[in-house]
Amino acid sequence: MNIIDIINKKRLNEELSSDEIQFVIDNFLNGTIKDYQMSSLLMAICINGMSDEETINLTNSMLKIGKTLDLSKIEGIKVDKHSTGGVGDKTTLIVGPLVASCGVKVAKMSGRGLGFTGGTIDKLESIPGFISNLSTTKFIEQVNKVGMVDSSANSQLAPADKKIYALRDVTGTTSSIPLIASSIMSKKLASGVDKIVIDLKVGNGALMKTLEDARKLARLMIKIGKIHGKEVVCILSNMNQPLGKMVGNSLEIKEAMETLVGKGPEDITNLSIIIASYMVSLGKNIKLNEALSLVRENLNNKNAYKKFLEFVSYQGGNINKLQIKSRKKVILSDKEGFVSKINTEKIGEASMLLGAGRKNIYDDIDYSVGLEIHKKIGDSVRIGEPLVTIYYNKNVTNIDEMIKSAYTLSDNIKEEPRLIYEILE
Amino acid sequence: MNIIDIINKKRLNEELSSDEIQFVIDNFLNGTIKDYQMSSLLMAICINGMSDEETINLTNSMLKIGKTLDLSKIEGIKVDKHSTGGVGDKTTLIVGPLVASCGVKVAKMSGRGLGFTGGTIDKLESIPGFISNLSTTKFIEQVNKVGMVDSSANSQLAPADKKIYALRDVTGTTSSIPLIASSIMSKKLASGVDKIVIDLKVGNGALMKTLEDARKLARLMIKIGKIHGKEVVCILSNMNQPLGKMVGNSLEIKEAMETLVGKGPEDITNLSIIIASYMVSLGKNIKLNEALSLVRENLNNKNAYKKFLEFVSYQGGNINKLQIKSRKKVILSDKEGFVSKINTEKIGEASMLLGAGRKNIYDDIDYSVGLEIHKKIGDSVRIGEPLVTIYYNKNVTNIDEMIKSAYTLSDNIKEEPRLIYEILE
Repeated sequence: MNIIDIINKKRLNEELSSDEIQFVIDNFLNGTIKDYQMSSLLMAICINGMSDEETINLTNSMLKIGKTLDLSKIEGIKVDKHSTGGVGDKTTLIVGPLVASCGVKVAKMSGRGLGFTGGTIDKLESIPGFISNLSTTKFIEQVNKVGMVDSSANSQLAPADKKIYALRDVTGTTSSIPLIASSIMSKKLASGVDKIVIDLKVGNGALMKTLEDARKLARLMIKIGKIHGKEVVCILSNMNQPLGKMVGNSLEIKEAMETLVGKGPEDITNLSIIIASYMVSLGKNIKLNEALSLVRENLNNKNAYKKFLEFVSYQGGNINKLQIKSRKKVILSDKEGFVSKINTEKIGEASMLLGAGRKNIYDDIDYSVGLEIHKKIGDSVRIGEPLVTIYYNKNVTNIDEMIKSAYTLSDNIKEEPRLIYEILE
Repeated sequence: MNIIDIINKKRLNEELSSDEIQFVIDNFLNGTIKDYQMSSLLMAICINGMSDEETINLTNSMLKIGKTLDLSKIEGIKVDKHSTGGVGDKTTLIVGPLVASCGVKVAKMSGRGLGFTGGTIDKLESIPGFISNLSTTKFIEQVNKVGMVDSSANSQLAPADKKIYALRDVTGTTSSIPLIASSIMSKKLASGVDKIVIDLKVGNGALMKTLEDARKLARLMIKIGKIHGKEVVCILSNMNQPLGKMVGNSLEIKEAMETLVGKGPEDITNLSIIIASYMVSLGKNIKLNEALSLVRENLNNKNAYKKFLEFVSYQGGNINKLQIKSRKKVILSDKEGFVSKINTEKIGEASMLLGAGRKNIYDDIDYSVGLEIHKKIGDSVRIGEPLVTIYYNKNVTNIDEMIKSAYTLSDNIKEEPRLIYEILE
């Protein structure tokens, strides 16, 4: 077996055998297959695709080469939550405490971010003192004690995915349903949980631009989960505009806390309640309606908020020291009408340019900066009204124009967009 | 402009602008664009293709970034010859002296080989003393004095092609008509010649497997030539079996010399005469028939042979010291019938495994080893008759089986294959 033959096979749109896929993963991880060979193969996969069987084999190969976390010392059903990522997505920070406050253990591993903003771990690290790299022992100890933990992903768990993901990011090979499915599922299966709720973002600020593609990805992940005996629920949610109002790191922590005391924006509040309810339903083996009541109750009585404070403080974070040290500038509209479209990717890019996200893996993040979105789809806008407030520490050329150009206004009011398209399980 | 956007464009099968192509070439050569990014783009080009305009722009960008040889100090029309490569292809060694003996200057630059056997430069270096890295001054001086030179390609001439070609070779991205066309033409245009004859190999031992693909490639190269005011003739010739009988380095030098004294195999003799006639016709601006007579005359009167000896000796080579220091083993047929098919690629691979070709760029070549082909398509074979003689210095596992399996015998005699399919200009 050799890599050139395997690349040529995929270039000619032939199916790879499970041995060939295992050969690729093993030899890429040990360095025999070079980055430039792997990226060539990844591009052939992006264009020619993979059968379900190939994707399942790829997931298994990536899983097999790493360790799987043993969560048997945690009592009860372990439910995980994953988001395919978008702009302003701080749901984990709300959903985690909500679920934990309902008595379902949350053993969460999160990642850092590339692109628009930081990942959940970056956001949590904007809280002074927060420790994200817990040992497995401490991780399990905390879940059992506090009911919730969020630690950075252990590099031994999905080493192949980690290496491939880093390469995909810089070689234009991120948009591939089989590659996304195997990446997410190999990571989630390695994390040792029993059931998985996936918030699958759809829209112009997400990897999946269409509902059709999102459905394909969802069905594939559900299928992979089933093979491994894990129940997977996919919630297809709207990412045609930023979620909530805040985009950034400290800014999103702030908004998550506001949401947990009932003062958050409607969209992020509702989406968090839905995701949390599915997790509680799976984790407690109760009906969705029952779970929904329980979640609402723990949101209203502030138990979820208290759980957030408890878990942050247990990981060393001092929430009172959270500061947003940046200058503010309000971007005003020079047009009028109703917001009919927001180029969410452009908003994400603006956030990255301000320093809230990394362009390259080793870039530093400025936790304080970001954007506050005043106008969302369906809102009326008058000339001179604020569209967005930017929080900044460095000047970014043309940032005003960039943000203004992300907005499309129309004369007619547009129907409010659906927050959740459908739920597949 | 950034490379990820450009890769994504080609992944989505969109056309790249001339600025984008220039950006890629400039930044790949200066190292800003990494190998793993370039190979991803190359694979997208392999699968999604390129328009003629993109291919022309790619050729121009590769040409622009390197130097172009100034051949103005050589009198007359400069005609070059290029082969797209095959197994046992030693035509340059015969055609060069033939053309020069007819009074047309041959200013040839050749390459080393990867794969089946060495390139023309490797073959020439199997002659003890032969010097292949001439300075431009010496190169031009020799053409004017001897009428023929063959030197290794100057690395300043097509640096982008060189770097891209090396990457394509190890990333499964060789089979792309636009990439092949721009690679050949950027090199040939940089070599400063006026007219170009291309021996375009078609068949199971060539890059182009079908006549249809070969025609596409030919038409594209003719078009690129026209834009640069250079006449290009493409001779589409058969590579469904090795050319001549000898495959190796010293072995092919020996066969070229036998051909130049009228004792060579029919196929290599005829193909060399045709290519040489086209070159003489273009170089002297005379009719093809006239050129053909002149070529035959200089073959028969041994002027071409003398020219070979003169040019080799002028470049320091001592032809009397050419030795084939290897053991021989005759592979006998264990079947009978008529040869209906030869897996030429397998023969080439056997040659490489024996040491006649490089697997990796830095491998050494064993000049003495190779194969002598006794049976070609249409020949009758009895059990126990020799198929191939291997010349070897090291044992290669299963080499006998490999060679036998390259032969397909049938009960019926097969029509002798056409040597030349068609000529496009």
